[in-house]
This record gives sequence, C-alpha cells and structure tokens, in this order.
Amino acid sequence: MKWLTFILLTLFSAGAIAQDPKSERMINHRRAAFTLMSSYFSRILNVVEGEVEYDKDSVIQSARTVEILSKLPWVGFVPGTEFGDTRAKPEIWLEEDDFEKLAVDMQNKVRDLRIAAEKGDPAQIKLAFVTARKSCGACHDRFRKKIE
Amino acid sequence: MKWLTFILLTLFSAGAIAQDPKSERMINHRRAAFTLMSSYFSRILNVVEGEVEYDKDSVIQSARTVEILSKLPWVGFVPGTEFGDTRAKPEIWLEEDDFEKLAVDMQNKVRDLRIAAEKGDPAQIKLAFVTARKSCGACHDRFRKKIE
Repeated sequence: MKWLTFILLTLFSAGAIAQDPKSERMINHRRAAFTLMSSYFSRILNVVEGEVEYDKDSVIQSARTVEILSKLPWVGFVPGTEFGDTRAKPEIWLEEDDFEKLAVDMQNKVRDLRIAAEKGDPAQIKLAFVTARKSCGACHDRFRKKIE
Repeated sequence: MKWLTFILLTLFSAGAIAQDPKSERMINHRRAAFTLMSSYFSRILNVVEGEVEYDKDSVIQSARTVEILSKLPWVGFVPGTEFGDTRAKPEIWLEEDDFEKLAVDMQNKVRDLRIAAEKGDPAQIKLAFVTARKSCGACHDRFRKKIE
C-alpha cells in the first residue's frame, strides 16, 4: 500500500517539479545544511589527519557548529521532494522509520564528538570523529544516490 | 595600488579557477550559509506577512537559528574566490572595510531580531525583521551581482 501511494505520488509530482518553488526551497535547505555541516566536519578531519595542527578551541568551535547544523536538514525532507536537484533516494519516504533512526543516530554521534572536543583529548576526538563519520556514511549508503 | 594587486590577482587566479577545489569549497560554504539563513529568515517573513499564524516559540527558534547562521558565511570570503559559481562582486576584496562593516551590521540586526522574538511582541518583531532585512539588502545592493 505504501508503494501504491508512492507510485501515485510519483505520477502526480513528476509533472509538477519545475512548477513547485517550495519543493526547490526545501531541497536547497537540506542541501545547504549538509554542505555547511560537511565544511565544519572537514576542519576536524584536517586535524584528525594531521594536516592542521590541533587547536582545542578551534576544534570545539567546529564540533559545536556541526552539532547545531546536524539538527537542521530534516525539515527539508518533505514528501514529494525526491525529484529535482537532489541525491535523496525515494526510499527515504518509504522507509521513514529507518531514515529517522539513522538521522537521530548521526545527531547523537556528532553530539558525542562535541563532548570529546570539549574534553580535549586528541585520541578521543579522533575516535569520536571516526564514529560520527561512520554514522554519516551509514545513511548515505542506504538513502543517498551515488554520483554517476 | 590596491587595483594593481587586484588585476594581478585576477590574472593569476583566472587560469586556476577550475583547478582549485578549495575555492569551490569556500564558495559553497558561504552560499550554503546564506541559503540556510534565508530559509529561516523566510519563516519569520511568513509570520510578519500574516501568511503563517504567529507562534512565539517557533519565531524564537527561527530567529536564534538565523543569528547563529549569520556568523558563518564570512570565513568563506577568501581572496581569489570572486570567480566561479558566485554572485560575490570583486569589490568585496577591494573595499574590505566597508564589506565587513555591513556584515557586522547585519549580524547586529539579526541579534536584535532574536531579542525581539524572545520578548514576544509581534509589532516589535515586525520592526526588527524589517530592519534586519534592510541590513541584508544594503550589502546585496553594493556587493552582490544582480541576476541577469
């Protein structure tokens, strides 16, 4: 029944993509949140990989920003926004519980990363970073289209 | 002398645009911050314009998010990123003091909007919103390319 609803929604939405500025705004919203989150996450990556020298305050700042940003994309995942300039798989709206579970898990893991950053032990930060990155990847593997 | 430096930088950078993923990341960073800020700002606009019913907590939430986001774009305005997929005018890097002044002014105005949101008087919120929007516009008028 979920699939039937989905097919009907697809048929209905497909013709309306270009005419729907609200869907476009929702897609832009969530993409912007992920882009920005990734930008601050990358700063911590640079430290974890030794490319940038560890500076406690700067890592805390990045980790806090990632944590705040991790709460923002989800409002953009409105039904009917699986079309257009997005890598979101339609499965997001068919397996909503699983999607939400992975989304919540990621938010918990970046919270843990922020806590580790505040404690200031580089080894713990690295561990928390790797764990957080895995939680991003788990959702991407399942719900994000591959770049062709 | 500033113009000479600029011309030299331009000549130097022009050939390097496509090969510079860091510049692209910086542009994406600031664009994402503005997109997301605009998304939460629009929610307050909808309330101010009476399209969405006033809900104190929701306006506070949007205004707080706008305030946090208002601090994020600036790190992306790295010299040499006036090319590529951006509407940033080169004047940003030639008249840096003026650009910074407008950027700081906007941040102050969205802070005032957050304060008004917390007080919870719709008339004050509207006033603070209009003032904040003007501060966005002042910078766009001067430093953002028009869409052709």
